[in-house]
Amino acid sequence: MKEHERRTMEGILFTDQYQLTMAQLYYRAGLHERTAQFDHFFRNYPDYGMHKAGFCINAGMDWLLDWMTGLHFRSEDITNLRSQTDSRGKQLFGDDFLGWLEKGFDFSSLTIRAVGEGRVVHANVPLTVVKGPLAVAQILETALLNFLNFQTLIATKAARIRESCDAQMLLEFGLRRAHERGANAGARAALIGGCDYTSNVGVSHVLGFVPKGTHAHSLIQTFLALGNSEEDAFQAYADLYPDDCLLLVDTIDTLESGVPNAIRVFEKLKKRGHKPVGIRLDSGDLAYLSIQAARKLNAAGFPDTIIVLSNNLDELVIWQIVTQIREEAPRYGVDPERLMKRLVYGVGTRLITSTGDSSLGGVYKLVGIEDGPSWRPAIKISETPEKTPNPGNKTVWRVYDERGKATVDLLALEEENPGDWDKVKLRHPSDHTEKRVLDKAQISKIEPLLEPVFVEGKRVADSHSIETLRQRREADVAQLDPGIRRLMNPHIYHVSLSEKLWNLKQSLIESMRRSG
Amino acid sequence: MKEHERRTMEGILFTDQYQLTMAQLYYRAGLHERTAQFDHFFRNYPDYGMHKAGFCINAGMDWLLDWMTGLHFRSEDITNLRSQTDSRGKQLFGDDFLGWLEKGFDFSSLTIRAVGEGRVVHANVPLTVVKGPLAVAQILETALLNFLNFQTLIATKAARIRESCDAQMLLEFGLRRAHERGANAGARAALIGGCDYTSNVGVSHVLGFVPKGTHAHSLIQTFLALGNSEEDAFQAYADLYPDDCLLLVDTIDTLESGVPNAIRVFEKLKKRGHKPVGIRLDSGDLAYLSIQAARKLNAAGFPDTIIVLSNNLDELVIWQIVTQIREEAPRYGVDPERLMKRLVYGVGTRLITSTGDSSLGGVYKLVGIEDGPSWRPAIKISETPEKTPNPGNKTVWRVYDERGKATVDLLALEEENPGDWDKVKLRHPSDHTEKRVLDKAQISKIEPLLEPVFVEGKRVADSHSIETLRQRREADVAQLDPGIRRLMNPHIYHVSLSEKLWNLKQSLIESMRRSG
Repeated sequence: MKEHERRTMEGILFTDQYQLTMAQLYYRAGLHERTAQFDHFFRNYPDYGMHKAGFCINAGMDWLLDWMTGLHFRSEDITNLRSQTDSRGKQLFGDDFLGWLEKGFDFSSLTIRAVGEGRVVHANVPLTVVKGPLAVAQILETALLNFLNFQTLIATKAARIRESCDAQMLLEFGLRRAHERGANAGARAALIGGCDYTSNVGVSHVLGFVPKGTHAHSLIQTFLALGNSEEDAFQAYADLYPDDCLLLVDTIDTLESGVPNAIRVFEKLKKRGHKPVGIRLDSGDLAYLSIQAARKLNAAGFPDTIIVLSNNLDELVIWQIVTQIREEAPRYGVDPERLMKRLVYGVGTRLITSTGDSSLGGVYKLVGIEDGPSWRPAIKISETPEKTPNPGNKTVWRVYDERGKATVDLLALEEENPGDWDKVKLRHPSDHTEKRVLDKAQISKIEPLLEPVFVEGKRVADSHSIETLRQRREADVAQLDPGIRRLMNPHIYHVSLSEKLWNLKQSLIESMRRSG
Repeated sequence: MKEHERRTMEGILFTDQYQLTMAQLYYRAGLHERTAQFDHFFRNYPDYGMHKAGFCINAGMDWLLDWMTGLHFRSEDITNLRSQTDSRGKQLFGDDFLGWLEKGFDFSSLTIRAVGEGRVVHANVPLTVVKGPLAVAQILETALLNFLNFQTLIATKAARIRESCDAQMLLEFGLRRAHERGANAGARAALIGGCDYTSNVGVSHVLGFVPKGTHAHSLIQTFLALGNSEEDAFQAYADLYPDDCLLLVDTIDTLESGVPNAIRVFEKLKKRGHKPVGIRLDSGDLAYLSIQAARKLNAAGFPDTIIVLSNNLDELVIWQIVTQIREEAPRYGVDPERLMKRLVYGVGTRLITSTGDSSLGGVYKLVGIEDGPSWRPAIKISETPEKTPNPGNKTVWRVYDERGKATVDLLALEEENPGDWDKVKLRHPSDHTEKRVLDKAQISKIEPLLEPVFVEGKRVADSHSIETLRQRREADVAQLDPGIRRLMNPHIYHVSLSEKLWNLKQSLIESMRRSG
């Protein structure tokens, strides 16, 4: 795409057609500036097939707000829309409506509350609440979902991989397999979710990270094609980067050629007063090869060089590698715990595309609309009761139990404050038989989750550093019950409604069934 | 991300760090301007789990060339790179090398041959061949793979969905679930691969398409919340878009509320001389509901209104719907073939993220490098023989059998022209026992697949319209054997080497094993 085309595709027209046809209808009906409220939430945790997430990591808001800042319908956008015709050839969007889009449409009329980036979030909990003129909030839907669905998906996958690799360094390597420009948002989300660094140069510089990477097989191939050896290639690399010497050892034969050649080069580096960094393994049985490479490195006096593993890694593959090393290393006289502490994981495709479940099904639902002096809650009944969204203007509270573990996310009406209650009554969102009551003694903390992020067109919070978001993630994950953190068959975290919200929901369902 | 950050992330630094560390090594070794050749190819067709592709549709080159046009290391990029330090705190990239990047680096020194966009392509066949200065061609790797892997992945998925829905209209609806900005490239690829239109407004305008879409559930919800009815919402829509009236009928109850209300509105439209377009079903048993909706529409005198189906569709779901309609429709007095002809499929998430296999593993391998007057072929031996790439400067020929079906893609050396041969000898890429000989009489056509697209910095072919690329795709797919086109368990298309290329490969493998 060319630059002016990019501006068209990535500006306000980064939306679905039906947002605009609906907006015109609201405009003509005089409803376009009615205050409405939409909730954004996802219904299901990512399900990777054999395994499933028990929690997600919220991400993407900062870049959404960047996108919204100053965004408007440019005259080129209006020209494009004016060119659309209906099936009789008449202009589809009237000049009155186009005039309003160009002059009257403004994201600064919106107010957005949201759960912070980096926080643990759960299914069916509003993560973002958008309030403002109906047509403006409606037109925001597609981009909001696009930005937030994807970064949350990837931050979640990264958090799972982080769980499987303990405190070891984790690198994001997926740029070449990412969904085109989504690579950058994906790298950011990976950093929030648990990666330490990324190989992606541009995004690293923008976010204040050092990009990571050394060399590829092609370096060795070039030297070989020109009549030199693998060792020559390693030596050239070591000469140029004596203090950052990390060598990819699997171009010819990992144990017969790569590792011995690397050791020879490391020995020369050591004599010259440099500390070799390590090796990278990119094929074969990574657990077995890392044990054998460690043996050779240990024997040669390099017990601390790191071993970077890459090649289609994800949380389960890493889990398998760790398990295999625990079992197999002692047989070869290698201490598994020491070996594991020198491992670094490079994760590409399976993180950046969230292999197994490549999308998060976040939705954006109308929950209320202003009607003169009053406020009308909105609902959509689904044939599956769990899919009927929770109506009205809500707040979300996270309740921590006496151990300090998060035990439930409570959805309540805006005017309620469960912090003041003696007992917290919890209603299941759809099953009327399921109730639970928490005494004050069972609760160590009740915390509101939604915070204003955009008020009357102004960003309220400064954008946070990735480091801050990571700290939030770590703190939140540590406060999860181990059953929720489990990589496979996690427990389902409780999300409940307050009694008042439950009653509102029931009365709306009944009145809608009567009208239906 | 902010605008200046976007320029950093989407410019020449949209690459992996190791491309730059290797480039500096080549620069220091005086190898950076040696002419090298890289082949881009994928090793495996997308495997969606229960089903698998037997062919891919090539896509992405036009946007890659747009990205490359005029691209260079800006002074901001150089400043970023200059800020990188090694582990002792010394500047990682030397000023000499940075000077070359800023002044000497130029994609215009490259020549690129490629298989055309929209064409059927196969595993292990070079789809793109890049020739030029080693360091320049190396730095291109990441972006080239990023652009081409993704669009080819999505065009392939779209082509499969196109196979399952016959000649019916197919719409791309996935923007909200796409991987952020990858949505636009994905929509383009979907249009190349088989979609007729997309709901994505911006990309539609850029590519000269009409964006498609009508209204969402929220329109009905808004009317209901304000005390009006579903029929009122439909009527408002019909009043505004009398000639484009397509109504979403599943907000309350598809058969009890949505369809009867739509029919009432359609009857009024008809009286006023308008032709109602149809309805959309977005939940439930789409096959059953479309039969029942068709019955009601037929009975009301609307036998031609279309029925748009959406909700997690893909090639298998559509196949299931078609099968179920064939079985079930006659029982309800509905002609299944007529019903199927009025169906339109809206496909979202499962197309735009290629659910089941969310990445294409395209790679970019050094195959040769200039050495004074001679040319050195390069190879990388893998422990799995099929993974050892085919060395040297190659051409690719597609051979069609006497029925006019594509029977084999033949990789030959640049100087060979199989069109001149009496017999075409075919060698399996890795199994020495598998040979095949085609007589002239068995061959209806031999066609070179690689065409120059970028020669000494100039785009050779004008970018083609999506319509042209679709025609190529249709022609190529029609020339595939039905066994290759099959959605499940497709036959494996033959890719062979010429005798000369086979011999070169064997001699390189032997010499590498000796040196290893």
